[in-house]
Amino acid sequence: MEGSRRLPDRNGLPAVENVSVVLVEPRNPLNIGAAGRAMANFGFLDMRLVDAYRVAADEARSGPHAEEVLKRSRDFATLSEAIADATLVVGTTSASKRDVHISIQRLEEAAQMIQQHNGRVAILFGSEKFGLSNEHMGYCHSLVRIPTVEDATSMNLGQAVSVTLYELIRRSPQTDLAPAGMLDEFVARLYEALQLAGYVHHDNVIEKLRRLTRRMNLREHDAVMWLGMVRQLLWKLKSEN
Amino acid sequence: MEGSRRLPDRNGLPAVENVSVVLVEPRNPLNIGAAGRAMANFGFLDMRLVDAYRVAADEARSGPHAEEVLKRSRDFATLSEAIADATLVVGTTSASKRDVHISIQRLEEAAQMIQQHNGRVAILFGSEKFGLSNEHMGYCHSLVRIPTVEDATSMNLGQAVSVTLYELIRRSPQTDLAPAGMLDEFVARLYEALQLAGYVHHDNVIEKLRRLTRRMNLREHDAVMWLGMVRQLLWKLKSEN
Repeated sequence: MEGSRRLPDRNGLPAVENVSVVLVEPRNPLNIGAAGRAMANFGFLDMRLVDAYRVAADEARSGPHAEEVLKRSRDFATLSEAIADATLVVGTTSASKRDVHISIQRLEEAAQMIQQHNGRVAILFGSEKFGLSNEHMGYCHSLVRIPTVEDATSMNLGQAVSVTLYELIRRSPQTDLAPAGMLDEFVARLYEALQLAGYVHHDNVIEKLRRLTRRMNLREHDAVMWLGMVRQLLWKLKSEN
Repeated sequence: MEGSRRLPDRNGLPAVENVSVVLVEPRNPLNIGAAGRAMANFGFLDMRLVDAYRVAADEARSGPHAEEVLKRSRDFATLSEAIADATLVVGTTSASKRDVHISIQRLEEAAQMIQQHNGRVAILFGSEKFGLSNEHMGYCHSLVRIPTVEDATSMNLGQAVSVTLYELIRRSPQTDLAPAGMLDEFVARLYEALQLAGYVHHDNVIEKLRRLTRRMNLREHDAVMWLGMVRQLLWKLKSEN
């Protein structure tokens, strides 16, 4: 937040300055410290502690190996205050069948949504013992679940933070990806070519093509190549009809 | 390894029974415990300890919350003995510029290679303080690096294990993916069609097509669709020449 904060050398990783890691009611200084270390590893700067056990928070912050991110972490009395500036609030949970009326996303899906969000994103992690309460979840726009095996769903807090943040930085920023307009153009030209070649029998072919094309996850550079090829095929097919 | 070992409910996650997690010279029982918990979360069964500090190993194994995987972990005096049955050995490192003559892969690339390997895979994690030595790395077929920011590369051992194993289970198993033969067929037919349409000017077009096609990461079901489309376009172009 402060202008004086030194930004880490991102080593080619995507920017994540708009993401805050919010630990709700953490009790163990080792876990707070582990979360801070994970944040430092992946270049996240903003840690917020909600109703943290004071001794634990102070111990984590003043420890000999405390990361910059821990020293600068801020305390909030309530979750509401901690996320006041966030326009997207994402809760993490290990349970697959919570009794809440919010859809639970896979971590990968949520990561894409978070990367594409322009305002402040708050990612909430519950206490070591109980996770996020139903009340906490009420503040969330969506819930995310790290995929774990059925009989060992409960993750260590530091590890949950680490895996979640890794998923946020592992892929290149979405600026790499082909814009939707280019994909639509590719689908339209391909559809035209297939019609000329007599391929198109069903009503929903163009929707099918759209889904197939989306699943290619094309980077812009590759999309330009594919589009060029389809245009050439289409030109030839047209010139002969 | 034992026939009596109960396999965890995998909750839809890919099988990883052929993967061993090898901790080389771990010193801290908390870290051994944390690694074991990460393994349990993601359904990995086989932990091997190399020259572990005996007290730490015993403490981790007998702790009140010790996971099944910790209790069944095995001790080896040397790395050589621990990986004797492995046909693929992958070392983890946080440094980007080690003086070793092995290529360093990104975690995502390595995960794909590991998933596609049929024999036993050993993934090595070095000691908390020093990581893997150059001697240890000499046993590795490849090295893998978790992407971290330049000034905070050193990860907590439990978190490094957690992130690495998460990357191995987050994607669907490779049985989903199109076999190489199908991709080759697609590339060959596409090349033929492009030639007929007058697109092909350069020598290395077919190699380019191969790379473009590999980057689509096609599932078999989608590959069948793409192949059908290209065949139809090719048939039409041929019929008019």
